Amino acid sequence: MPRIGIFGATGYTGYELIKLLMNHAEAEIVFATSRSNAGQQLSDLYPCPYELPLTAPERATVDKVDVAFLCLPHGESMHRVRRVREAGVRAIDLSADFRLRDAAVYCQWYKVAHAAPELLLQAVYGLPEVYRQRIASADLLANPGCYPTSVLLALYPLVKDGYLGDSRVIVDSKSGVSGAGRKLSSKTHFVEVNENLSPYNIGRVHRHLGEMEQELAAWGEVDVRVTFAPHLLPVDRGILSTIYITLKAGWSVERLLELYKRTYVGEAFIHVLPAGTLASLAYVVHTNRCAISFAEAGGNDFIVVSAIDNLIKGASGQAVQNMNLMFGLDETMGLPM
Amino acid sequence: MPRIGIFGATGYTGYELIKLLMNHAEAEIVFATSRSNAGQQLSDLYPCPYELPLTAPERATVDKVDVAFLCLPHGESMHRVRRVREAGVRAIDLSADFRLRDAAVYCQWYKVAHAAPELLLQAVYGLPEVYRQRIASADLLANPGCYPTSVLLALYPLVKDGYLGDSRVIVDSKSGVSGAGRKLSSKTHFVEVNENLSPYNIGRVHRHLGEMEQELAAWGEVDVRVTFAPHLLPVDRGILSTIYITLKAGWSVERLLELYKRTYVGEAFIHVLPAGTLASLAYVVHTNRCAISFAEAGGNDFIVVSAIDNLIKGASGQAVQNMNLMFGLDETMGLPM
Amino acid sequence: MPRIGIFGATGYTGYELIKLLMNHAEAEIVFATSRSNAGQQLSDLYPCPYELPLTAPERATVDKVDVAFLCLPHGESMHRVRRVREAGVRAIDLSADFRLRDAAVYCQWYKVAHAAPELLLQAVYGLPEVYRQRIASADLLANPGCYPTSVLLALYPLVKDGYLGDSRVIVDSKSGVSGAGRKLSSKTHFVEVNENLSPYNIGRVHRHLGEMEQELAAWGEVDVRVTFAPHLLPVDRGILSTIYITLKAGWSVERLLELYKRTYVGEAFIHVLPAGTLASLAYVVHTNRCAISFAEAGGNDFIVVSAIDNLIKGASGQAVQNMNLMFGLDETMGLPM
Amino acid sequence: MPRIGIFGATGYTGYELIKLLMNHAEAEIVFATSRSNAGQQLSDLYPCPYELPLTAPERATVDKVDVAFLCLPHGESMHRVRRVREAGVRAIDLSADFRLRDAAVYCQWYKVAHAAPELLLQAVYGLPEVYRQRIASADLLANPGCYPTSVLLALYPLVKDGYLGDSRVIVDSKSGVSGAGRKLSSKTHFVEVNENLSPYNIGRVHRHLGEMEQELAAWGEVDVRVTFAPHLLPVDRGILSTIYITLKAGWSVERLLELYKRTYVGEAFIHVLPAGTLASLAYVVHTNRCAISFAEAGGNDFIVVSAIDNLIKGASGQAVQNMNLMFGLDETMGLPM
Repeated sequence: MPRIGIFGATGYTGYELIKLLMNHAEAEIVFATSRSNAGQQLSDLYPCPYELPLTAPERATVDKVDVAFLCLPHGESMHRVRRVREAGVRAIDLSADFRLRDAAVYCQWYKVAHAAPELLLQAVYGLPEVYRQRIASADLLANPGCYPTSVLLALYPLVKDGYLGDSRVIVDSKSGVSGAGRKLSSKTHFVEVNENLSPYNIGRVHRHLGEMEQELAAWGEVDVRVTFAPHLLPVDRGILSTIYITLKAGWSVERLLELYKRTYVGEAFIHVLPAGTLASLAYVVHTNRCAISFAEAGGNDFIVVSAIDNLIKGASGQAVQNMNLMFGLDETMGLPM
Repeated sequence: MPRIGIFGATGYTGYELIKLLMNHAEAEIVFATSRSNAGQQLSDLYPCPYELPLTAPERATVDKVDVAFLCLPHGESMHRVRRVREAGVRAIDLSADFRLRDAAVYCQWYKVAHAAPELLLQAVYGLPEVYRQRIASADLLANPGCYPTSVLLALYPLVKDGYLGDSRVIVDSKSGVSGAGRKLSSKTHFVEVNENLSPYNIGRVHRHLGEMEQELAAWGEVDVRVTFAPHLLPVDRGILSTIYITLKAGWSVERLLELYKRTYVGEAFIHVLPAGTLASLAYVVHTNRCAISFAEAGGNDFIVVSAIDNLIKGASGQAVQNMNLMFGLDETMGLPM
Repeated sequence: MPRIGIFGATGYTGYELIKLLMNHAEAEIVFATSRSNAGQQLSDLYPCPYELPLTAPERATVDKVDVAFLCLPHGESMHRVRRVREAGVRAIDLSADFRLRDAAVYCQWYKVAHAAPELLLQAVYGLPEVYRQRIASADLLANPGCYPTSVLLALYPLVKDGYLGDSRVIVDSKSGVSGAGRKLSSKTHFVEVNENLSPYNIGRVHRHLGEMEQELAAWGEVDVRVTFAPHLLPVDRGILSTIYITLKAGWSVERLLELYKRTYVGEAFIHVLPAGTLASLAYVVHTNRCAISFAEAGGNDFIVVSAIDNLIKGASGQAVQNMNLMFGLDETMGLPM
Repeated sequence: MPRIGIFGATGYTGYELIKLLMNHAEAEIVFATSRSNAGQQLSDLYPCPYELPLTAPERATVDKVDVAFLCLPHGESMHRVRRVREAGVRAIDLSADFRLRDAAVYCQWYKVAHAAPELLLQAVYGLPEVYRQRIASADLLANPGCYPTSVLLALYPLVKDGYLGDSRVIVDSKSGVSGAGRKLSSKTHFVEVNENLSPYNIGRVHRHLGEMEQELAAWGEVDVRVTFAPHLLPVDRGILSTIYITLKAGWSVERLLELYKRTYVGEAFIHVLPAGTLASLAYVVHTNRCAISFAEAGGNDFIVVSAIDNLIKGASGQAVQNMNLMFGLDETMGLPM
């Protein structure tokens, strides 16, 4: 039974993680930190019955845990990860700090020099459906971003086998508001979001592009260039990505289904939908699943539609899935189906 | 002051039309028909104070009006239009029946033979920003579809001048639920739509493709092939179209802004947003405006984002705008800014 | 491990029940019926991966199960319950058919004569926090209505000890749309509900009044007269009841908290909130909990605010809680906390 | 044509006021102030095409206007009103500062001493349906609060004629989020509000109680004691108040309808609904109307349900209605029906 510490427990990913671990048969939360709410309990902040005390990060008893989850902002997380690793404790980092293997690429997207570049190569990118073996033995786990999870799981079977005929991919993503975090901003004020739909950071701007293109390049023969257009959706949770691709000749939805079902056979959290059915948020919210579906767009053009819950498969649920793998537990333990 | 008859007053476009005409200084509603609610008043059906009597279509006094609006289903509208025209009354048809100039193309998309093909060539496509002159003298006005309005206004300046470098355009549209109409369906049940986002009829399937491609072909040198992916959004109203294009060399957002502002100079209902600002539904809902904005996507790739209110600029508001033109009134009269 | 049959599997309570049982360690679903969707699978109807076959009710193998859940409309359920009981199988009825002990009262509220009056006295009202002992040995369990659950749990401690000073209670309830069921109706069309709030059946009209007043009368010395005003809320799930009461002299929020915590000590699903905190839907949705809170209104007037998830504690979750009790399982098994 | 100045143009009431005045045939906006956004245009803050410059309040040319609207926070507004009045300019104050006639009562509810008590008796409470004559000649107009508008219009006919049989009234109100203002707070974060319903400040706590009870006392023979329970609703706009009253003997819904229709005869913005129909937000949002409806609750108990748009009839629309009266314009000018 892994003993667990959580840094940054009071953001949306921290809260979701705690709710998952509270229902996990083999997890024991030893500490949960909050800089601004130290001394309070989780039930003072969130509408829940959990009287979990929040401690200042300085008072966290890292030596008493087997694994630390870091739900901190990027740039801050890497400092805490270094100290966790120096204490010999395994780390699951939900920030972006260890997802990019190249410190220069990190600096390009995140506009800050990496403070722990020596740890970058240790880090394992925590997409279990692709890197299950490496994850099992990882000491530093970089939990994938929410948008990249929805896109990478949707493209992996095609890219790893070199089936993309055109190296350009257009990703039109729509995300629920919890993805923007709990920090106050006029962009997340109810009246600004409700009955609205807003594109933001579209084109070649969003930071998750680096992460997507790194993995696609690692899997395929050629560099894939992604056009990425995220939109803010008036729902609490969920990401739907509509992905426009051009394949080499000879494809159909049936052949796509055959490839994906074969690639993902036995995967508990991948739901490949039958022909004629398209993924929607309702397939996945409040679960750790990723739903994937296909449509023809004429000629060699196809559309892949994938959906995840951004807080579960796109963050805390995938982190628990990774923890399960790292500690030899049933991969699905504690995860809503 | 045009005397007005409305066929099919009790759907969402009919109700929206009546609300607009009730606030229009120069309009007089002579009759409003409803097959299933004849004998009732509008206030029996909708939460409004309008005690407008609903009459059976057979009892409509077509000879007492100057113009008839048709808010009927496609396939049914063409029969009514023929009788309206035979009575010498001008017709504004909000259905799809007279938007396609070629009866064979109509049949291909709508799966029914056209019953009044001789009227197709008389019909004027009612996009005022493009066809203002013809609209003024039209006797049969085909009011554009909601999705085509959002797409065509977003592409017109580029296509008419031959600036598209690649003849493929990808349109990812998101529409509020009123676009699906008032007919009961599990697809529009609150619990199915709320907190959800659903793609539907994506690829080369949706009927509005014919209308989009007809107009793009009429304006440009080459046929434009559209990939079209509509999504159902958990909001009442509004369409946002995110349009992926590749231009010939030498373009920038600034040059696009210059072209669009020049093309649409003096247009009361076109709102070209400044660089760095993207259209969202909040710019347009409850107005007759179309907001248009741009982003770069690397190289010659660009994204055009446009937004309209599907019930106003995408249907009843545009119909009133067309009526104003047809009767020599101020084009903006009665239309929410 | 109870073997389970479900009649009426495809409504919202049936679907919620199946999702709960799928995550229940000791439950085995033997059959799930649907009159209109027989031959299909659950995944054909709902966005889920459950390939559970739906059978016609006539083909249900009642003799193969230990307990049958009935998620049928009232009036229909009583006929099926009789046959289930005749087969010697225990029944958990989620309809209203066995909640009222008096067939005449049933007829008064539901406008239909009761077809199995001899079973009424066998039925146990399934509010575990009040009737735990009787539930354990029940063969026919009448699962409480959603509104009554939210009201009765909020008043039980006061009424059973005779503390109500005025026999009139005003209940202003607000319910999510899933409470209205999956049947198509213009009242549940997205556009009618979204951005709206609608009172309905207010005063002394709603059928759940009979159930509330029966239990309150059974617990207290005097008859309590309830004014009940339900409202349809633009959310998927949850009921919040704001209850206005007048107590005998000498009460305060602190004394109320003391009474409620004492009455509900050890109850896993009752969350009595601390002074100064009010219940909201966020405390309970997606859980089997009931949150209860208090405010002073001057003099001897108080307000009790309670919240439940109408599909879980207000229907299928409470049904599973009852099943756990009936089969000697841990009462919380399979129920989201 | 009144020349208009607006103090505090960038909150929700300021923005709504500007949109109304932009469509008002006889209004000219001379200045609009913003402390924090001086130097910007309205279109920099809100998704609209209005290039209205925002000036620092110190630079407002009060001597150039006929009337100033004050959309400032309470406590701050009274200082600005004094200066406006000293300049001989008429003032329409949308804050709470001049609604209570007694400075001591103001201090009791708002916890701050009144800085311009000598102006309190000059102020006219701007409920046109009650105080139309006085409003026409007012120099200082106190625009009513949103909740009080919904409650007072619902009770005025009964109270002025002494028909309340019990001096206690219970008001259960539900308000959209724009009522909470544009200031950032975790209470208005989308994720906290969406799919939620939260009571707040219930009992005898909310500041609007003073305003309600002042007017009810002024109209009736006896003091009416109000229990007031506001709830935050996951919608943009609208207030629905469900009001529980006990009348003297002999009342029915029909008699109530007769009284209300007689009292409000000719009122353009009062919509008394027919028997059997209940007010909902959909009747009033985006209009200046108040919808009022009734239900029986047994014996002499009745329920009055009223609805308004909190930003229009509950704030800026009513302010424009008052301006129209003050300047001898058609009372409905510029107001959405």
